[in-house]
Amino acid sequence: MKKVLLVGVGLIGGSYSLALKPRNEFEFGGFSRRSTTLDMAEKLGIIQHKFDDLNEGVQWADWIILSIPVDVIRKLLPGILDIVKPHQLVVDFGSTKGAICEEVKNHPNRANFLPAHPIAGTEYSGPEAAFPGLFQDKCLIVCEEDETKADLKDEFEEIAKSIGFYIVKMGAEEHDRHLAYISHLSHVTSFALSNTVLAKEKDGEVILELAGSGFASTVRLAKSSPEMWTPIFLENKKMILEGIDAYLNEVQKLRDFLSADQAEKVQSFLESGREIRRIIQ
Amino acid sequence: MKKVLLVGVGLIGGSYSLALKPRNEFEFGGFSRRSTTLDMAEKLGIIQHKFDDLNEGVQWADWIILSIPVDVIRKLLPGILDIVKPHQLVVDFGSTKGAICEEVKNHPNRANFLPAHPIAGTEYSGPEAAFPGLFQDKCLIVCEEDETKADLKDEFEEIAKSIGFYIVKMGAEEHDRHLAYISHLSHVTSFALSNTVLAKEKDGEVILELAGSGFASTVRLAKSSPEMWTPIFLENKKMILEGIDAYLNEVQKLRDFLSADQAEKVQSFLESGREIRRIIQ
Repeated sequence: MKKVLLVGVGLIGGSYSLALKPRNEFEFGGFSRRSTTLDMAEKLGIIQHKFDDLNEGVQWADWIILSIPVDVIRKLLPGILDIVKPHQLVVDFGSTKGAICEEVKNHPNRANFLPAHPIAGTEYSGPEAAFPGLFQDKCLIVCEEDETKADLKDEFEEIAKSIGFYIVKMGAEEHDRHLAYISHLSHVTSFALSNTVLAKEKDGEVILELAGSGFASTVRLAKSSPEMWTPIFLENKKMILEGIDAYLNEVQKLRDFLSADQAEKVQSFLESGREIRRIIQ
Repeated sequence: MKKVLLVGVGLIGGSYSLALKPRNEFEFGGFSRRSTTLDMAEKLGIIQHKFDDLNEGVQWADWIILSIPVDVIRKLLPGILDIVKPHQLVVDFGSTKGAICEEVKNHPNRANFLPAHPIAGTEYSGPEAAFPGLFQDKCLIVCEEDETKADLKDEFEEIAKSIGFYIVKMGAEEHDRHLAYISHLSHVTSFALSNTVLAKEKDGEVILELAGSGFASTVRLAKSSPEMWTPIFLENKKMILEGIDAYLNEVQKLRDFLSADQAEKVQSFLESGREIRRIIQ
């Protein structure tokens, strides 16, 4: 049995365990700041062992999977790498990669670490949100994989494919740039839209009645965990600010066309935005 | 058999017909600017009669349902009301209500008109997008209903309820104000996000790989029809501009917090946005 320590037993870590359960080749341990979360993960069959000491858990495991806020990954990772043995692999599932890679680039055990990012998730969080099919046909981005021991990396990637992932390789900075625009900016727009509507519409009943108009899907990401997303925004600040500025510029353009009754320009703005349907069905 | 003329046989008009089909009490005629659209609607069983003359269709029908761009509704409605007989009912399913109601408020046959708005739809359009379950458990907003003959209105609403709608009554201006924030603004943010990402990411493959990060749902509405949405934006311009300004202000706030590394303020911005989960499950 391969021993996997989940540092963070929520949506991502929990789903990883549940997806591997049918193979009967893995044993899962869990570490979490909150003991109630660990208890819940145990009840849900996500973990079989609870650790209240991180080092103890790391020493127990073959693989250590970090699915916690990105700033906490950055803080804990060097200490974990300090104590890993040659056969152990540490993988982080964080949504930013640049700062994390930078933090450990000169660590003597850097080759035992694989920076990864599963492009999968829902707006829910915690062990109760985990489900085994989350990674089916989803992309797992792996960064700087030449820096990781080949045998450790290969085995991990094979297992990842077996639960539905396809692997995409990317540089850490490239990852953060793409994610800033495609993922992080979507969260910015959702949270801002939610705040705008909540400030204006005091009657929840009206929002609920009108949510079928498309609002529900546009604002869905605003239900995401602030605990996870505040650090992502801060860790990827430079690129997200660039994305926000480009976005503000687009909204302003549409505002100006509309304000000046430029129907043709409004329509061509919408036509060009609609091109996204050629990419996403 | 009650005769219903669909002026516009796309997603909304088409779904209305398909939902009523099992009752076997309705005959549907269609009018459309495009004869290919009419042919398709006939093939799909949405209509049984094609009209290439609007007046002829109106004279044939008991009910006339307008599911076309809101500026076209506004232009056609007075002429239709000019020729309706006392037993006929004209209903518009447009996404704005103020300008349409204003246009016919003094029309001698105003009492044969019911302004309505089904809060239902998908990002797809045309007869091929229509399906019978679209209105299940959805809200139908009915405006100024005291201006409509009670017997005509009551019968129409009863039938609407039978296909899944629940009725919400609202003033036309009130409707446009709520919709500006909850629906129209969602479309602004989606189209702008799509344009931002398409301008930055030239490689569609990368967008597709990362779409699972939440981007797909946030940008979904950008696939909506520019032909329908340009007139909506222009007809409800005043309130949408107000909504856009409030929204720009929220995005700018988050940008400033982030730019100044104010982690607590970023987090509380996200926490307040997340309150939307108390309203929309």
